[in-house]
Amino acid sequence: MAKVAKVIELVGSSEKGWEDAVNIALKEAAQTLHGISGVEVVKWTAKVKDGKITQYKATVKVAFGVES
Amino acid sequence: MAKVAKVIELVGSSEKGWEDAVNIALKEAAQTLHGISGVEVVKWTAKVKDGKITQYKATVKVAFGVES
Amino acid sequence: MAKVAKVIELVGSSEKGWEDAVNIALKEAAQTLHGISGVEVVKWTAKVKDGKITQYKATVKVAFGVES
Amino acid sequence: MAKVAKVIELVGSSEKGWEDAVNIALKEAAQTLHGISGVEVVKWTAKVKDGKITQYKATVKVAFGVES
Amino acid sequence: MAKVAKVIELVGSSEKGWEDAVNIALKEAAQTLHGISGVEVVKWTAKVKDGKITQYKATVKVAFGVES
Amino acid sequence: MAKVAKVIELVGSSEKGWEDAVNIALKEAAQTLHGISGVEVVKWTAKVKDGKITQYKATVKVAFGVES
Amino acid sequence: MAKVAKVIELVGSSEKGWEDAVNIALKEAAQTLHGISGVEVVKWTAKVKDGKITQYKATVKVAFGVES
Amino acid sequence: MAKVAKVIELVGSSEKGWEDAVNIALKEAAQTLHGISGVEVVKWTAKVKDGKITQYKATVKVAFGVES
Amino acid sequence: MAKVAKVIELVGSSEKGWEDAVNIALKEAAQTLHGISGVEVVKWTAKVKDGKITQYKATVKVAFGVES
Amino acid sequence: MAKVAKVIELVGSSEKGWEDAVNIALKEAAQTLHGISGVEVVKWTAKVKDGKITQYKATVKVAFGVES
Amino acid sequence: MAKVAKVIELVGSSEKGWEDAVNIALKEAAQTLHGISGVEVVKWTAKVKDGKITQYKATVKVAFGVES
Amino acid sequence: MAKVAKVIELVGSSEKGWEDAVNIALKEAAQTLHGISGVEVVKWTAKVKDGKITQYKATVKVAFGVES
Repeated sequence: MAKVAKVIELVGSSEKGWEDAVNIALKEAAQTLHGISGVEVVKWTAKVKDGKITQYKATVKVAFGVES
Repeated sequence: MAKVAKVIELVGSSEKGWEDAVNIALKEAAQTLHGISGVEVVKWTAKVKDGKITQYKATVKVAFGVES
Repeated sequence: MAKVAKVIELVGSSEKGWEDAVNIALKEAAQTLHGISGVEVVKWTAKVKDGKITQYKATVKVAFGVES
Repeated sequence: MAKVAKVIELVGSSEKGWEDAVNIALKEAAQTLHGISGVEVVKWTAKVKDGKITQYKATVKVAFGVES
Repeated sequence: MAKVAKVIELVGSSEKGWEDAVNIALKEAAQTLHGISGVEVVKWTAKVKDGKITQYKATVKVAFGVES
Repeated sequence: MAKVAKVIELVGSSEKGWEDAVNIALKEAAQTLHGISGVEVVKWTAKVKDGKITQYKATVKVAFGVES
Repeated sequence: MAKVAKVIELVGSSEKGWEDAVNIALKEAAQTLHGISGVEVVKWTAKVKDGKITQYKATVKVAFGVES
Repeated sequence: MAKVAKVIELVGSSEKGWEDAVNIALKEAAQTLHGISGVEVVKWTAKVKDGKITQYKATVKVAFGVES
Repeated sequence: MAKVAKVIELVGSSEKGWEDAVNIALKEAAQTLHGISGVEVVKWTAKVKDGKITQYKATVKVAFGVES
Repeated sequence: MAKVAKVIELVGSSEKGWEDAVNIALKEAAQTLHGISGVEVVKWTAKVKDGKITQYKATVKVAFGVES
Repeated sequence: MAKVAKVIELVGSSEKGWEDAVNIALKEAAQTLHGISGVEVVKWTAKVKDGKITQYKATVKVAFGVES
Repeated sequence: MAKVAKVIELVGSSEKGWEDAVNIALKEAAQTLHGISGVEVVKWTAKVKDGKITQYKATVKVAFGVES
């Protein structure tokens, strides 16, 4: 296991729901980062239009190993 | 865009799940408020009976534009 | 109603999603505790492997009545 | 039970003590709001003059059901 | 002095700066509320476009006396 | 003095007031735990009915020595 | 009114109750400080012996004007 | 450099604005304290009268070296 | 709109004031990042010398869209 | 791996240092609990006498698997 | 025991480590204050130069009895 | 001095102790970043196996100057 992990903050958006928003953020992160080991959701928000949620947004902290 | 938004706090309840509880709170708010632009969920709780969740509850902050 | 409630902290895990993780923690708690009245989710995390969530984890506070 | 509750913030003042300050805020709220179900005190302060407390102040969050 | 104060949350926006954003929120509030006694700024954000702030936003808590 | 203390969380309820609610939680705890050395009140809430507090509730952390 | 206030932190103790503990801290502060204008209680704890509270303790922030 | 710094809390007031309120608190502190190295603003409030801010107030933590 | 935003933390410094410090951090960020949509100031500090502020510092969170 | 973990709070004490205080709390916990997987230190305090630390104290959260 | 304790905030620095930084702050405090009963470390920081820690810094709250 | 600093979050791990875990994170960071000026430890955790700490982990915020 890498001895040092880095933690970055992302905000994922989805029209379907919050769990999907987290997965979209994670999928984006996995395209450039290797060794992602975990996520923590620190904020749950949503954009609203005409009284309905149009975009679920999840602010996530993503941890991944740093190769040394 | 309105220059001032107001933020109120609601607690929505649902037997189905937390996402539904947020939507129920939002639906209620939309009946009397115009220009709702976003929500943030600040607390996730639930009532339990006989070892099962009977009511999912989401405390949400709802922002809406104030007409001036 | 019991005049004193006790609050304990559990972490539930599920491969399906966070709501299921909460229910798994609650189901486990209900096997030994009577009079569970409510839960609050205080932390939402997940284990990730190969860019995908393999385990949703929910840290929950569970309140139950203490018989006196 | 109403499916949506609203939460407002009040500051009650009393010359007698903090518990009285909470009750004064609650009494005021009950004149215009129906279905108040609970309060949470989030801040305890006091005004002081000549080394003595002249006004106990309690900041409370009051939850009440919204009729739909 | 009124014995009970109410606290509401507003978000003011300005193209000029944060202090102006607070004053805009306050000016709006003063149109409908009497006896405003104080404000607290709890969040300082801004919208950005092409690398420049286009809208300063201040989230403020406004306290005002409730007539009884 | 015991070298390790354990901390548990309780919620005491009383119709009389918050200080009584803390003492009720403490009295309950003392029936089964030995060596209680201190408490901290972390949350003050109350149930309300017909505009009046019917149940004062205090969430307390109770520390007690663990015999080894 | 003084243009600058100083804020100090004290812990008052009383065998009678928390409100008395706050007043004891305030009385002590008033012996050496002039122009005390307010207090905020930020922590409520107590020492326990034989299952009973022997000392109520209140951590308070005391604000007083600085003469210039 | 002094090996120990002390941190005190002040509240500065100004009719002009928040930045001025911080400087007023700092100016007052500098009259009696040597070696002030930094400040942090932890709270931004204001007194309001007739719908206008009459006094900007900044709560600041001031660090200064302790001569040993 | 990009479906994923990234959030980074910067500390801007200015001899003129805090608002300028935020803009300096933003200007620096805009040199390498595209699609910056917003900032939030989370900490306001300053360096002091001879009783005067020599450097205003603002810790900001900057959000920008990630191209996918 | 167990699907549910429980989290308890302990306070360890040591005359040698904080790291030792954490290990003492952990050693005590390991006598009765199986499957301890991790700890988090949430508070670092110490008792002082005659100007010297006589007891280092670490408040730790200990997570362990619950057998089902 | 004194009925009122005062709490002050200090920042100790050491080239050796954090525990030493706490002790340096405490030693400094003990030169002028009597009856110090406890400390709590609320922040752990360090200055870095050429990739190495050159100064460990611990922000501590120190409680001491006030003679009345 | 650079006018803008960037802050990143790392998690260092060590079998020896927390201070070593911080230094390992710092050493890793120094391999790719220039002008690191300070660190703050925001979380202290550890992995445990068979009742003993096998990996001390420190979550640190690292600040470094951004060349412009």
